[in-house]
Amino acid sequence: MAERYTEQEAHPIAVDVIIFGFDGEDLNVLLVKRSFDPGRGEWSLMGGFLKSHESLDDAAKRILTELTGIHGIYLEQIQAYGDPGRDPGGRVVSISYYALIEVSGFSREQKEKFGAQWFRVNQLPGLIFDHNAMISNALKRLRRKCKTQPIGFELLPAKFTLPRLMALYEAIYSHEFDKRNFRKKILSFGVLRKLDEKDTSGSRKGAWLYTFDKEKYNKLLREGANFEITA
Amino acid sequence: MAERYTEQEAHPIAVDVIIFGFDGEDLNVLLVKRSFDPGRGEWSLMGGFLKSHESLDDAAKRILTELTGIHGIYLEQIQAYGDPGRDPGGRVVSISYYALIEVSGFSREQKEKFGAQWFRVNQLPGLIFDHNAMISNALKRLRRKCKTQPIGFELLPAKFTLPRLMALYEAIYSHEFDKRNFRKKILSFGVLRKLDEKDTSGSRKGAWLYTFDKEKYNKLLREGANFEITA
Repeated sequence: MAERYTEQEAHPIAVDVIIFGFDGEDLNVLLVKRSFDPGRGEWSLMGGFLKSHESLDDAAKRILTELTGIHGIYLEQIQAYGDPGRDPGGRVVSISYYALIEVSGFSREQKEKFGAQWFRVNQLPGLIFDHNAMISNALKRLRRKCKTQPIGFELLPAKFTLPRLMALYEAIYSHEFDKRNFRKKILSFGVLRKLDEKDTSGSRKGAWLYTFDKEKYNKLLREGANFEITA
Repeated sequence: MAERYTEQEAHPIAVDVIIFGFDGEDLNVLLVKRSFDPGRGEWSLMGGFLKSHESLDDAAKRILTELTGIHGIYLEQIQAYGDPGRDPGGRVVSISYYALIEVSGFSREQKEKFGAQWFRVNQLPGLIFDHNAMISNALKRLRRKCKTQPIGFELLPAKFTLPRLMALYEAIYSHEFDKRNFRKKILSFGVLRKLDEKDTSGSRKGAWLYTFDKEKYNKLLREGANFEITA
């Protein structure tokens, strides 16, 4: 290390991941009970320490897999948290990430194996340190991103009905959309492909299944299209 | 420190500040020549190392004041940069911030004292490490924020003309606005107060001076107003 650098105070760096999951009705966050002090036995985000050889993104992926078995999902950095008193165990700067999955993509076995539990975002317990603030900021980012980018589709299965898509938007924004307006708006973007298949679990008549056309979305995005959805 | 923490690898943490300045025509970034290795003599953002007792925000403020004499200006964190090879001097994670000032708020004496220089954002030199990427991400954030929040006013003097305000938006977004539409749109927000005073430096007829009404803005914001400006 350069001499100037070795003179500096060094700090462990943590990475904490907010895992959002949608269950068809509510937006949830996956939490674990912390297994070591300080905060042992309290609810916590999935977190760990950065290793010398890895990037922040790689650390977030590794921690997610180690603590949940999940891999290959949408992950994005939010920001760094560095108040000197944020962690009573010592001076740790933490970088927060958020991840998006379907609730059904995380099995009961995985939940038991990792001691993890889903909580609705509007009914969270008190979490260790500044983890509640991390979730609150992650939710703001998710809301902003979903307005202009179709990252919400990461929270849905590959095939979904329009009512389910609307329920997702309602869960993210915590307010109701008008069914006809939502349908009109979302179809006007031209990024949903209607399948020749119905979901009949909700009614005998059934609801058409759709899929998200990522290629078309990317093409439209390059052409400067706007995907803003408002209530 | 908790035992679990002392077992972790520790790293120096840097804070780098992107200082945007508007000179009436162009958006600029303030850079310095780095005074130590690696990268000695190359252009760099204003940066320094986090100390144990200070928050990230406080470190950004301190570094800004130490390297430019500037204090009391708009500062906001962007994100953390942590690729293992980003700094050839050693493993350093850097947290980037951006700051907004008027170019005239930074005097020639200050520039000389601190060896700093303004560069247009579209004519930047090659910077050390990942500093060009940091500026590019900061510019994206500035563009996004200016669409919905009046942070652009931090880049203007307290009194300004509408042509100068439009020139600022044109510099931030790198494209031209229609004069009549811009005027109509910006006045429709109801957050500009027309003063009984003209700027006659540009023409004999002069242009009315305006000021930003922050109280009214905050009131409208609480009521859910939208301040989106598009070309």
